[in-house]
Amino acid sequence: MVNIALIGCGRIGQMHAANIAKHQLTNLTMVFDADEESARKVAQLYGVKVGKTSAEIFDSENIDGVLIASATSTHADFIEKAVFAGKPVLCEKPIDLDLGRVNQCAKQISGTSIPIQIGFNRRYDPGHRGARKAMLEGEIGDLHQVIITSRDPEIPSKTYLEGAGGLFRDMTIHDFDLARFMLGEEPTEVFALANALGDPKLGAELEEVDSAMCILRTASGKQCHINNSRKALYGYDQRVELMGSNGMLISGNRKPHELKRYGSTGVETSAPYQFFFVERYSEAFMAEIDGFVDCILNEKQPLSTFEDGRKALILAEAAYLSMHERRLVEVSEVDEY
Amino acid sequence: MVNIALIGCGRIGQMHAANIAKHQLTNLTMVFDADEESARKVAQLYGVKVGKTSAEIFDSENIDGVLIASATSTHADFIEKAVFAGKPVLCEKPIDLDLGRVNQCAKQISGTSIPIQIGFNRRYDPGHRGARKAMLEGEIGDLHQVIITSRDPEIPSKTYLEGAGGLFRDMTIHDFDLARFMLGEEPTEVFALANALGDPKLGAELEEVDSAMCILRTASGKQCHINNSRKALYGYDQRVELMGSNGMLISGNRKPHELKRYGSTGVETSAPYQFFFVERYSEAFMAEIDGFVDCILNEKQPLSTFEDGRKALILAEAAYLSMHERRLVEVSEVDEY
Amino acid sequence: MVNIALIGCGRIGQMHAANIAKHQLTNLTMVFDADEESARKVAQLYGVKVGKTSAEIFDSENIDGVLIASATSTHADFIEKAVFAGKPVLCEKPIDLDLGRVNQCAKQISGTSIPIQIGFNRRYDPGHRGARKAMLEGEIGDLHQVIITSRDPEIPSKTYLEGAGGLFRDMTIHDFDLARFMLGEEPTEVFALANALGDPKLGAELEEVDSAMCILRTASGKQCHINNSRKALYGYDQRVELMGSNGMLISGNRKPHELKRYGSTGVETSAPYQFFFVERYSEAFMAEIDGFVDCILNEKQPLSTFEDGRKALILAEAAYLSMHERRLVEVSEVDEY
Amino acid sequence: MVNIALIGCGRIGQMHAANIAKHQLTNLTMVFDADEESARKVAQLYGVKVGKTSAEIFDSENIDGVLIASATSTHADFIEKAVFAGKPVLCEKPIDLDLGRVNQCAKQISGTSIPIQIGFNRRYDPGHRGARKAMLEGEIGDLHQVIITSRDPEIPSKTYLEGAGGLFRDMTIHDFDLARFMLGEEPTEVFALANALGDPKLGAELEEVDSAMCILRTASGKQCHINNSRKALYGYDQRVELMGSNGMLISGNRKPHELKRYGSTGVETSAPYQFFFVERYSEAFMAEIDGFVDCILNEKQPLSTFEDGRKALILAEAAYLSMHERRLVEVSEVDEY
Repeated sequence: MVNIALIGCGRIGQMHAANIAKHQLTNLTMVFDADEESARKVAQLYGVKVGKTSAEIFDSENIDGVLIASATSTHADFIEKAVFAGKPVLCEKPIDLDLGRVNQCAKQISGTSIPIQIGFNRRYDPGHRGARKAMLEGEIGDLHQVIITSRDPEIPSKTYLEGAGGLFRDMTIHDFDLARFMLGEEPTEVFALANALGDPKLGAELEEVDSAMCILRTASGKQCHINNSRKALYGYDQRVELMGSNGMLISGNRKPHELKRYGSTGVETSAPYQFFFVERYSEAFMAEIDGFVDCILNEKQPLSTFEDGRKALILAEAAYLSMHERRLVEVSEVDEY
Repeated sequence: MVNIALIGCGRIGQMHAANIAKHQLTNLTMVFDADEESARKVAQLYGVKVGKTSAEIFDSENIDGVLIASATSTHADFIEKAVFAGKPVLCEKPIDLDLGRVNQCAKQISGTSIPIQIGFNRRYDPGHRGARKAMLEGEIGDLHQVIITSRDPEIPSKTYLEGAGGLFRDMTIHDFDLARFMLGEEPTEVFALANALGDPKLGAELEEVDSAMCILRTASGKQCHINNSRKALYGYDQRVELMGSNGMLISGNRKPHELKRYGSTGVETSAPYQFFFVERYSEAFMAEIDGFVDCILNEKQPLSTFEDGRKALILAEAAYLSMHERRLVEVSEVDEY
Repeated sequence: MVNIALIGCGRIGQMHAANIAKHQLTNLTMVFDADEESARKVAQLYGVKVGKTSAEIFDSENIDGVLIASATSTHADFIEKAVFAGKPVLCEKPIDLDLGRVNQCAKQISGTSIPIQIGFNRRYDPGHRGARKAMLEGEIGDLHQVIITSRDPEIPSKTYLEGAGGLFRDMTIHDFDLARFMLGEEPTEVFALANALGDPKLGAELEEVDSAMCILRTASGKQCHINNSRKALYGYDQRVELMGSNGMLISGNRKPHELKRYGSTGVETSAPYQFFFVERYSEAFMAEIDGFVDCILNEKQPLSTFEDGRKALILAEAAYLSMHERRLVEVSEVDEY
Repeated sequence: MVNIALIGCGRIGQMHAANIAKHQLTNLTMVFDADEESARKVAQLYGVKVGKTSAEIFDSENIDGVLIASATSTHADFIEKAVFAGKPVLCEKPIDLDLGRVNQCAKQISGTSIPIQIGFNRRYDPGHRGARKAMLEGEIGDLHQVIITSRDPEIPSKTYLEGAGGLFRDMTIHDFDLARFMLGEEPTEVFALANALGDPKLGAELEEVDSAMCILRTASGKQCHINNSRKALYGYDQRVELMGSNGMLISGNRKPHELKRYGSTGVETSAPYQFFFVERYSEAFMAEIDGFVDCILNEKQPLSTFEDGRKALILAEAAYLSMHERRLVEVSEVDEY
């Protein structure tokens, strides 16, 4: 069994705790949260120890890996500590909202072979992963276009939004990563525009947007479109389309079950899609743990690395530059590493 | 161009008239109806002649084929006249409600090579026909089970029902024919039960049923289920499923267009299925004309022959015997030809 | 936490053990198997005690419920012991292959309020359950017809088949139960036929069938069709269709993910359906545990009771009588309780 | 009956001729083509007169409307002549490849009430039209995003491409029009990029592109994405997605029939989508004739007007400017009318 400690016991941390407890190959061993009360609640539920400090986790010989689900601003510090302590890390995205800090962290940990897995859960989704596998096996020939539809079912709270770093760094970052995962080569050009349609008032108050469209292109000419909305009332909408010289692959939305309804005004009606990421990507979150265990036991590098986390943030920066300057931006303009 | 005369200018006759007029290879040449007024209306619409008697049609040298869409009780007579006159026939189903009369007609026309096509439109449907083609090409291996779902969107008028000959002879007859078309060998055993669920009152008044289930089996053991309802409020429901040793084929319902709706209470909702046979089988009715033209021009035998019409009626008789005697009936018990 | 002991550590028992271990509200506490080696393996995996005898389980004060997954011939004995010991039971289907033994057991436990849950997993499936719920809420008006398609992906081993009691008692029993669950009233008439199509040789050797069709009817006239195959090469096929006066509900097959493929010879191709019951009904098996816990903690009666198990077996007996006598059988003919 | 003359007897003209001949309310009355042989063939097929000159058509009192399907460079001239002659026009898109010529034509016909219908067939498609109707009826609340997928099944011949005016003017122009049709307000900003992926060699020879992505935005902030490919091997791909504050509508691809295949390596496989626009939009092309007849008989203005044709071309010009200058372009920059 692999002993895993959890840092950060908020909503996402709790979900990870449940998955670690449920997983056949992992034990939840210790938890830590800056808010001790949060840590205690999770610890009690699973009958595990609360770390007094995060150091207790990094110093413990009994711990094989650390899952970081604390506030974004603490991620880079914890990654550095984990690497220093020789402990494999599974860290929630994003690494940091500030590309400078991410680059600094990259330098600190440069050359390490300790696995650092970034929580880009979509890479682990059976449908998305299956699409990529089929593509890599040549099923659609050369990839030409990628279309990513990624819409959340509701606008987060004002409090959340104030700390989230903006749509491109908080939400689209998943899609930037997915684009890289699917394109198989780096996007070199980015165009983006965004505005507030779902909640114009909140948009005005926070200078924040909730609806966006981006286009990426790689050096060899592969094209990728991303569309985002924070307010898809019909449900969490997560689709990836890969169009190639020989065919197309679409990884679509997942329903809670396969019940269809037929009436006089409409037929083949399914239940609404799974509400949000916890439900939609439940298999993916579990597969993240599988992947993490595999890295720990077999000294592998993860499917989603630190560098993937850094590259996705660079695309977010490029998107902001494009949005502000209303032009196609070269990714190299923002990547100063 | 193939010159076609139409006998019977009621609802179905009018539909056929429009198709003959529209078809690239056919001319509507003459029409006849016992009710002259009906004939005149259709004649005017297409600028064609009204036959004074049906004999005018059978005697005319200018007519290459006759489409019979008159009352059921006249079908056998007209078929005999057409064969006697040497004119290819496309006759609506059923040949007659009385198996004795059908057998008599069979004897009358015995040995003729004049094409007699029975209007089993479903054999001509692109989806159903495609399923059979794929099966014959071996795509699902040996056929094991056939499931036919066949439900009408509304109960016909009392007047219609009084003359229709009962559910099995009027409605299920299409499915009996489709079963034979798909099974590729004769059903030798029939079980059937039926009762009135859609409109129990009408059921009581007419001693008629509106909901039925049948099971057929061939000598080699292939099984076939048919379910019928006269009242599928969600739309005309026409599905054929072929299950074999290597796979399955399902020819399903057709929608008017591919618009889907996504809301907070349900997703992927399509518009109701096409309302009834005129819409659902519009391509099939046109393909019937194609087939008829092919028989006339190339001296071929039709996809749905007189004998197919007779055999389907025998299955209806077997179904009634089974229903009344509450047992599995051998088809040979009712086939006295 | 609810402490559950497991009797029977074969394939199904192992699946239940994993579910009990994973479930948030249950502990796996003790295991027993007539083959001690089997019990030891499961015990080791979850770090629990092996009972020397089954009595150790029934006598233990520490055990809140017993899951019986042993050989079918032992089910009735263990149920009686559990009831005698006052322990709630979740017992795999069927209760026994012999209706006499089931009836005897029914008399033995007559009047007990101890929950006895029979493992009719399909009642717990989110899709099937949702269909029933929508129907009970009036969404399709009066129920007219139920169509159950239930096909296994591969023929079991000869050894399995020799002890399984025949298709209707082993496989169709699930569908008979599902029919009762959906019809909302007892079937009073049964017709069935069956023969060997998937593997005629095995059929001949064992006098066993692998393909069947049944029709059930209730006193009020509701109709139900069941079709079965032991060899659906395209995957485990589990569909339930409820057709009523106002609409239709279909609970269909579940795919492993929502990836679709589009090529020049076909489009919208999905991955094969989930292979067999362990995968297809994984949520249902977990919901069975939910239901069992609910019965134990809240002194409820289960969704699938002992009497449900008995009634399903009666329908299997009626099906055999119908098959042999080639006629519609009244269920009362075989129910001598 | 409405008498319609056809100018231009090439591939598209022949399709229109067949539709006019088949339509219940129209007569094909006269045809003209600069290549007399082409005209004669069509005339013979339908038994109609060949005009010696186009003037014969415009001068004829017997002609109620003119369908223009000649070479693009002649469209504007014929529109002017028709308006001068007081004859309603249904003209294939685009009006002209040169915006200057279109603007000049607009001035020439300024103020006319003669119906001038541009052949933007997609506006007449039942699915697309149904989506717009549902949106206008408020079914999805406020429109936020439009996603148009529009891919051709094969790259046209070099000859065709040399005269086509480039991807945005020839192919995307349909999507620009559809975007305007759906957005309900004018796009004010355009971004576009394009390159050759389907056939890089042809791309290099002709400096032509075959894969493109565009983003449009209206003054109120509504966003629209268009993606194009000239080479979708899996079939003609025509999808329109409308996402709003209360739901989503998707008008999808149309299959030739509803046959699905189920095998051991994949399930629910449909036949390839309808091959190209003649098949996919067959109902739309017929509805264009319905619309034209309605304009003629009831003095209505068409669903797709001259100004719609002009506006779509302006968006194509804006797309080229954006592509060349690699920036978001204001539509007003190219609209000098």
